[in-house]
Amino acid sequence: MRYVSRNRPFVIRKGAEEWKARKMWNAKYLEQVMGNQLVNVAMTPLGNADSVVEVEDRDLLFVKPYETEEPFETVLRKIQEQELNLNTAKEPTRYAQTQNDNLRNEYVSLFADCPTTIPFARITLEQDPDAINFWLGNSHSTTALHKDNYENIYVQILGQKHFVLLPPVESACVNEKRVVSATYVPQRSAGDQVSMDCKNDVEEELRAEDLVISIDVPEERVPFATWDPDDLQNNSTRFSKLSRPLRVTLGEGDMLYLPALWYHKVSQSCSPEGICCAVNYWYDLDFAGSFWPLCSFSRSVGLLASGKGSIGEEQSQNDVGDEV
Amino acid sequence: MRYVSRNRPFVIRKGAEEWKARKMWNAKYLEQVMGNQLVNVAMTPLGNADSVVEVEDRDLLFVKPYETEEPFETVLRKIQEQELNLNTAKEPTRYAQTQNDNLRNEYVSLFADCPTTIPFARITLEQDPDAINFWLGNSHSTTALHKDNYENIYVQILGQKHFVLLPPVESACVNEKRVVSATYVPQRSAGDQVSMDCKNDVEEELRAEDLVISIDVPEERVPFATWDPDDLQNNSTRFSKLSRPLRVTLGEGDMLYLPALWYHKVSQSCSPEGICCAVNYWYDLDFAGSFWPLCSFSRSVGLLASGKGSIGEEQSQNDVGDEV
Ligand SMILES: O=C(O)CCC(=O)C(=O)O
Ligand SMILES: O=C(O)CCC(=O)C(=O)O
Repeated sequence: MRYVSRNRPFVIRKGAEEWKARKMWNAKYLEQVMGNQLVNVAMTPLGNADSVVEVEDRDLLFVKPYETEEPFETVLRKIQEQELNLNTAKEPTRYAQTQNDNLRNEYVSLFADCPTTIPFARITLEQDPDAINFWLGNSHSTTALHKDNYENIYVQILGQKHFVLLPPVESACVNEKRVVSATYVPQRSAGDQVSMDCKNDVEEELRAEDLVISIDVPEERVPFATWDPDDLQNNSTRFSKLSRPLRVTLGEGDMLYLPALWYHKVSQSCSPEGICCAVNYWYDLDFAGSFWPLCSFSRSVGLLASGKGSIGEEQSQNDVGDEV
Repeated sequence: MRYVSRNRPFVIRKGAEEWKARKMWNAKYLEQVMGNQLVNVAMTPLGNADSVVEVEDRDLLFVKPYETEEPFETVLRKIQEQELNLNTAKEPTRYAQTQNDNLRNEYVSLFADCPTTIPFARITLEQDPDAINFWLGNSHSTTALHKDNYENIYVQILGQKHFVLLPPVESACVNEKRVVSATYVPQRSAGDQVSMDCKNDVEEELRAEDLVISIDVPEERVPFATWDPDDLQNNSTRFSKLSRPLRVTLGEGDMLYLPALWYHKVSQSCSPEGICCAVNYWYDLDFAGSFWPLCSFSRSVGLLASGKGSIGEEQSQNDVGDEV
């Protein structure tokens, strides 16, 4: 409670060590439980789900992954093969990361191995989680710097996650801009787009190069951090050099309290089986009191400093709000 | 604890009703206990202790009261006489408001009637109070809008206090500026300053008009809110109209939790005896976590918007820091 009230992150090393998920989960067990159930998977050519991409002729784009469904056992196998270099084909990078409460839906049979809430978080935040997510990927995927309107308890089960954390007051450092949104779409060869209807029936394997960026219609802009704390020069603001990122690696069984509105960039390392697996609990942010308005203020000033906003500016109708 | 973590004010009506101070204090009791002990008293011509004053030929000045010592019984009587119009002489307005832990020093004999800490505050803030202050004045004094680096438990004993409260995020509304600091000094007639050495021996009564503004040497600037939420037009910024002040009146026995860094302006009404008396407990602000840096950021941007600062500007050597 003291940490939440200070909006200050902490790690409980081995805090989830006694979970059934920690004791049971490995590639074989996951495959047994989930079998060939269809699950949502995010595919990208470069492991860059939900990230800003610089394209010739255009400014920056915010590019969402190609989302499709595959049997769980396929997703698992492809993730392992890519990590362990068992397949020479240049396939897209797969990341099961739906972030839509998938552990209580698609992955409900695995949810039995996890607590339904985190007791200390429930007591402190006076609520049950809004979403519980299952994450399965490999070291090819990186989640770009962003923030969420959630209090987050992030629990590493297999492999490692490497977090780069920036407090909300550093918003003027991250060069948040309203970026045109786009999506990776599969395209067999130039101009020859794969029919969406038969995407699950396609026999031939999709290759990384088949995923091309398609600008969303109608045009929509999403506010997104364009600076990367691991690439200090590009897309920096004159404040970026003042940023003091915290870096923390979660090992198996570790639990991170990632406070609401902290910017985070997340990369991963795999277990010897070639997978990285985590679950996380999202609790609604408390919008009461001074914290939310101060963060919003700091963020607005950051946007302004990036030259993409003006004080009191109305959001344009096709702008997406504060979710990203 | 929930309120503190949200930086959200609240009032406990009659929360101090059982205090000995509430049961015992009145003009006669105060006089009996304190007698002719010398106490510090702030004197101003207009009841404007620590406030911004507009002077011809100059910009704004931050003017501190003339501070002197008088027997408590004199201070009490003068405060009553002024309030109840018992004296036709135009005397300065007196306010015993030293804010230097005076209840545990000058007024220690009255401290026996108050708790040494506020239990819920001690538990929440994990500390004892840094300062406990005694306030004695009348309706002629108003405390100008300002903020403190303290968590404040303010307890009304006699009369009423009227608080105007603005959250820290409204710093761009208050038009904080680095204002040249000055002090009221007694001056018997033009050019004929009262010797400081004999100020307690002066036989003749000081009149309000004898207090003149003297700019402090060496020149010093203090950052201070120049906007008055009760005078929307003067000294406003283009954001002032967005301010949504909370107004709350404390009656006898009421307790206000005034969270750290909230701007507050305070005026007063007297008990039938012609006095307004309160005590307050200041607890150190928790500088850890996101709250303090976010407030500092918001304040810096506010200063910048008032045109009196630039991003990254160094404070000049004779500037006073963050205390006001
Ligand atoms: O694990 C990841 O790749 C990202 C995690 C994340 O962004 C979150 O939990 O909010
Ligand atoms: O009571 C007053 O006049 C002012 C109180 C105040 O500013 C405080 O307690 O911080």
